[in-house]
Amino acid sequence: MVPHLITALTGPINELEARILESMPAIERWFRLEWMEHTPPFYTSVDVRNAGFKLAPIETQLFPHEFDKLAPEMLPLAVQAAMAAIEKICPEAKNLLLIPGPCTGAPEHAQNLQRLIRVFNQAGLNVRLGALPQHGATPGPLALPEGGSLMLEPLVRTRGRLGLKDFDPCTILLNNDLSGGVPPELAGLHEQYLLPPLHASWGVRRRTIHFRSYEEVAKKFAKLLGMDPWLIHPLVAGTGPVDLAQTGVLEAVQSQIDAVLVKVRRKYKEYGINEKPYVVVRSDASAGLGELLVVRDPKDLEQAGERLRDGLAGQGRGGLPELLIQEGVPSHERVNQAVAEPVVTMIDRYVIGGFYRLQPEPGREGSGGIVPLAFAEAQQLPRPGEKPGASAPNRFYMYGVLARLAMLAASYELEATDPNAEIDE
Amino acid sequence: MVPHLITALTGPINELEARILESMPAIERWFRLEWMEHTPPFYTSVDVRNAGFKLAPIETQLFPHEFDKLAPEMLPLAVQAAMAAIEKICPEAKNLLLIPGPCTGAPEHAQNLQRLIRVFNQAGLNVRLGALPQHGATPGPLALPEGGSLMLEPLVRTRGRLGLKDFDPCTILLNNDLSGGVPPELAGLHEQYLLPPLHASWGVRRRTIHFRSYEEVAKKFAKLLGMDPWLIHPLVAGTGPVDLAQTGVLEAVQSQIDAVLVKVRRKYKEYGINEKPYVVVRSDASAGLGELLVVRDPKDLEQAGERLRDGLAGQGRGGLPELLIQEGVPSHERVNQAVAEPVVTMIDRYVIGGFYRLQPEPGREGSGGIVPLAFAEAQQLPRPGEKPGASAPNRFYMYGVLARLAMLAASYELEATDPNAEIDE
Repeated sequence: MVPHLITALTGPINELEARILESMPAIERWFRLEWMEHTPPFYTSVDVRNAGFKLAPIETQLFPHEFDKLAPEMLPLAVQAAMAAIEKICPEAKNLLLIPGPCTGAPEHAQNLQRLIRVFNQAGLNVRLGALPQHGATPGPLALPEGGSLMLEPLVRTRGRLGLKDFDPCTILLNNDLSGGVPPELAGLHEQYLLPPLHASWGVRRRTIHFRSYEEVAKKFAKLLGMDPWLIHPLVAGTGPVDLAQTGVLEAVQSQIDAVLVKVRRKYKEYGINEKPYVVVRSDASAGLGELLVVRDPKDLEQAGERLRDGLAGQGRGGLPELLIQEGVPSHERVNQAVAEPVVTMIDRYVIGGFYRLQPEPGREGSGGIVPLAFAEAQQLPRPGEKPGASAPNRFYMYGVLARLAMLAASYELEATDPNAEIDE
Repeated sequence: MVPHLITALTGPINELEARILESMPAIERWFRLEWMEHTPPFYTSVDVRNAGFKLAPIETQLFPHEFDKLAPEMLPLAVQAAMAAIEKICPEAKNLLLIPGPCTGAPEHAQNLQRLIRVFNQAGLNVRLGALPQHGATPGPLALPEGGSLMLEPLVRTRGRLGLKDFDPCTILLNNDLSGGVPPELAGLHEQYLLPPLHASWGVRRRTIHFRSYEEVAKKFAKLLGMDPWLIHPLVAGTGPVDLAQTGVLEAVQSQIDAVLVKVRRKYKEYGINEKPYVVVRSDASAGLGELLVVRDPKDLEQAGERLRDGLAGQGRGGLPELLIQEGVPSHERVNQAVAEPVVTMIDRYVIGGFYRLQPEPGREGSGGIVPLAFAEAQQLPRPGEKPGASAPNRFYMYGVLARLAMLAASYELEATDPNAEIDE
């Protein structure tokens, strides 16, 4: 059940792990106080990288769609968290309209929806699925790999409300990140709860804003623990909209990339890290991880223009591209020879599970895939008596802390970008 | 992990189980709405009996002290529920003073406390133990069976607050049912949260009041499901204070017992239950199960006086005894030939685990003891597609529902007996 982990742990992370474990009650109280001031996203998943010498979230999804990858034993945690979330947001809720993302045809798509339906059923909601045809979801049955099917129904929009035939929900849950923009069916729904809010969709979100919020969160947290925020924070820079055809623009991007690389190199030197720093250029606002370019050497910068143009052409998005330049945080965890990248899933403020995404290293044996993690007692909860780094349990508490920091950053981010926020400063 | 269960299921309970499973979202919503109006006890454990033909809670503890008997895999559920409870009651809480019950010398005593400390540590609280010497807890170390020890510290009472040396808690958690009355240290603590409140202690509680509240809850719930409340409700009667030495008092008790017996017999006849009904006479206000007398036959009533006097002498409590006359609900579940009595544990409104108490039947093979239940996905959550009664999963959802009904009754009960309640009718 618990995969065998091999982590190249070095000084700083061991120290960080020890500090996180010994500060556990203080950390949990700190989160509790933050959640008094800030509202957690409805659900979140965070990709974490453990480089051994540092640990950082690299991506925060606000429409997690991999619930099928969580270990089934941990579903009660999801149900309990969903109960708590619903109780706060819409305690009288009876019907939930779930709007899935594009039908990929992959069995995981239907399995993810089946899991979500089950969780919200058990939290006391009647759940039905509504199709957004312009987002690749056509009404009709969706076959489940184990037999049976789910039914995607046509949406029925009346003036102020969205529902299905004979189904008027008080709450609408989007499991679709609306990368293609907000469809008219979802606009102006003032009578119903729409979760997550529209400004959490990829038409509005910017990774640069998220990581700016994360920097703020990481600094606060680092202060609580008395440590260097860099140990949990990837350095970033944002380009804003860039027109690479214009003279001097590519050079400006190149010098931004170089500036991040220089900062990372300085940090590696400070900590005596004997590795080659690198930088990942990502799209600032596309679904997925949006990776466009990896720059390991200043001399790679020269080819950057061409490769960026190629990458952006593949994205096929209108308007000028915006870029995020992010410190590369390598993953030094391995499961069966494959690089293991932990993903932590949350509902409301609670960690409800996680899994490893396995990436075979080029030129090495190993297979890709998913290893679900039963974030059970033996895995999720810290054991203060045990040597840090010695065991999986401690690792997962730490990952859960990092993922919650990124979730808190998403909460800051959504406050900052809320179009309906009252400005009362 | 999951014990093999053999249940003598007959018509009504199968039907009830099916109805509970198919009504799951409605049931969960009903609880959600009830908890909008009523506050759940901080923690609760409920003894459930499954007779095959009916299912009922027979005892509701508001100071559960068997956390060591829960499967360790399920601790994350307890932590999550504790987080939710603390967030609602005292979100800024930093220090928790835990006041244990009498030291029995049994290893379970220290293990239960160790578990509680772990749960609340992980929910973000510094936990220390305060000793109530007049309740059998002397300051000093308490050895843990696995090595190490817990420290019971002397209480320090200042005018408005209770704490320890250099430890000023905002919240005090009693894990002591105060059967011997409320000690002066705990009186008048208006500046701190005292959980559960003093009127939840056995000096104040009456089982008759609890079961009157339970009757109300059971009727509401039975109406929701369209069924006879008797299927989930043990018939009861209360005697009030009785002086068995007085002429005619014993005869009055005997005729109350007989009246309950007659009612139960009528119900058995209505449902075609081919078993011998019986009645259990229990103390109305003592810790434990307080069983004094089992009456299976009206002719047993003649000896009732003597046996009652013997039983009450063993209780050694002051004042006139008060009695609860309760329909006996046999347990027809078996684990390895022993009678299996389910106990469900909750924190705040959430089921966090459970275990079976095994009672070897007289004259049969089998051993007593405890079987912890991992109330994980496979056990706790209902599987709507599956035949009711066919599997452990469905069983435990049903037990969790019954336990939460009893918890809701305790919430009604505490409202009714709250000395500080404002009367605004």
